[in-house]
Amino acid sequence: FEPAIIVHGGCGVYPREESLEPFLAGVKDAALQGHALLSRAGSAVDAVEAAVSVLEDNPLFNSGRGSVLNLDGQVEMDAIVIDGQTLGSGAVCGLRRCANPAWYTLRFHFQTRHCLLTGAGAQEFMRSQGIPEVPDSYLVVPRRRLAWEKTVLGDQRSPDTATASELSPGCDTVGAVAMDATGNVAAATSTGGTTAKLPGRVGDSPIIGAGAYADSDVGAVSTTGDGESIMKVCLARRTVELLEQSQTV
Amino acid sequence: FEPAIIVHGGCGVYPREESLEPFLAGVKDAALQGHALLSRAGSAVDAVEAAVSVLEDNPLFNSGRGSVLNLDGQVEMDAIVIDGQTLGSGAVCGLRRCANPAWYTLRFHFQTRHCLLTGAGAQEFMRSQGIPEVPDSYLVVPRRRLAWEKTVLGDQRSPDTATASELSPGCDTVGAVAMDATGNVAAATSTGGTTAKLPGRVGDSPIIGAGAYADSDVGAVSTTGDGESIMKVCLARRTVELLEQSQTV
Repeated sequence: FEPAIIVHGGCGVYPREESLEPFLAGVKDAALQGHALLSRAGSAVDAVEAAVSVLEDNPLFNSGRGSVLNLDGQVEMDAIVIDGQTLGSGAVCGLRRCANPAWYTLRFHFQTRHCLLTGAGAQEFMRSQGIPEVPDSYLVVPRRRLAWEKTVLGDQRSPDTATASELSPGCDTVGAVAMDATGNVAAATSTGGTTAKLPGRVGDSPIIGAGAYADSDVGAVSTTGDGESIMKVCLARRTVELLEQSQTV
Repeated sequence: FEPAIIVHGGCGVYPREESLEPFLAGVKDAALQGHALLSRAGSAVDAVEAAVSVLEDNPLFNSGRGSVLNLDGQVEMDAIVIDGQTLGSGAVCGLRRCANPAWYTLRFHFQTRHCLLTGAGAQEFMRSQGIPEVPDSYLVVPRRRLAWEKTVLGDQRSPDTATASELSPGCDTVGAVAMDATGNVAAATSTGGTTAKLPGRVGDSPIIGAGAYADSDVGAVSTTGDGESIMKVCLARRTVELLEQSQTV
C-alpha cells in the first residue's frame, strides 16, 4: 500500500484581516512529519500521533500549546488515538499540564488494556510514565487568553494593545488519519475544548465513535465541530459505517 | 402507548451457594418504581433515572452504594442518561462521593447543554446543585471491600470471618430503558466500574453509543459487560442501528 496521511487543523472562523498562510503551513508541517514516519515503515497509529503532536506544539491550534481556556482560566485537554487493526484505543479527558496529550494517549493505549482515563488518575498515570508536567504558562498563548477575557469579562479589557493575530479566534480541535504500508489505518484527535467551557466539560474528541474512529477494513475518521452535536449521532463511527456501505454497494 | 420499562442489574457470575432472590427482588423493585412513575404520566427519562436510582441505593448492585473499589480503594463512578426524543444526554465519569449518579446526570442534562462532565469540575457541579456529598463509608459495602482485598492483597486476608454473601462478587453495572405514554424512549446506565481498576479508568457506561443509546424513532439500549470491548464497537448505538434495520426490512 502507498502510505497516506490527512491532517486537519479544526473548523473555525477566520477573520479576513489574518493570513491563512501560517495555519496552512502548520497542517502541512504536521502532514509531512507524519508522512515521513510512514515512509520509514512507521505504523499508522504512530504517524497520526506524530502529526497531531506537531499541531499540539504549534500555538496556532486549539490543542496542547494554544489550547483554549475553560471558565476558570485553566487548560483542560481531551485526546484520543485509535488503531484500526484492533479497534484498540487510548484516550484521556480533562487532562491538565500535559504538552502532548496525543503522545500520552498512545502510551496509555500501549501500557494498559483500558480505553479512557480521567481525573487524578490521569495525572498520576502521566507521572508514572515520566511524562513531564508543563505549567499553564506554557500551554496558554495570548490569543487564547484574550478570547477568554472577551468571553468571561465581556470585553471589559480594551483590545487596543492586542495585535490582529491575538484577536483572531485561531483554529480549533486538530486531528489526523493515516494508512501505513501494511494497509492498516489509524486516527487521532486532540483538543482544548471550547473557550470558557464549564470546568470538567468533556466534548466529543476523546470519545470512541464520536471524536475519532478507525477500522482497517473500512477507513478512519477524525472529527471537529460542535462536540455535543457530534456526540449525539456518534459521528465518527457513523461516517465509517456509511463508508462501509458505499464500498459494498 | 402503553408505558413499559426494562431494568437490568448487570452481568456477572453468581456462586451457587447464594440465592438469586434478593437480586431479582432488587431489579423488580426498580422496575416497579420506574413503572409507577410512567403510570402517572411521567417521562421516559424520569422513569429510567428513578429505576436506576433504586438500584444505586441497593448495596447488592455495582452502582452508587455497593460500587466496587478502584486500585486505591476508592469509589469512582460513571453514569449516563439519554433522552430518545432529542438524543440529548447527561453523563459523568470518575465521579466521587455521590449517592445517586443517575440523578446527577439528569440534573446535568437539564441544567446545561453539555453531555459529559469529569474531574474537579464534576465535583464542583455537584456542590453548585446542592447535591450532598456522601463519604466512601456510605458507598463501600463489605462484599466490595472483600473483593478488593482479594484482588489487591492477593487473598492474604483470611475470609474465615466473611459470610457467604460477603464473598459473592455480587452484581455489576445497572441500567434501564423505558417508553412513556407519549411513545418517547430513554436509557440510563450507572456503574462503579471494575474492581481494582486503575484510578481514573472510565469504561463504556458514561459513553453515548457505548454504555447507552436511545432514539425515539427506533428504541433504547443500556449495556453491561466488558467495558473496553463494548466501547470498541459502540455497542449501544450499533444495537439501535440493527433494531432500525430489522424494522425496515
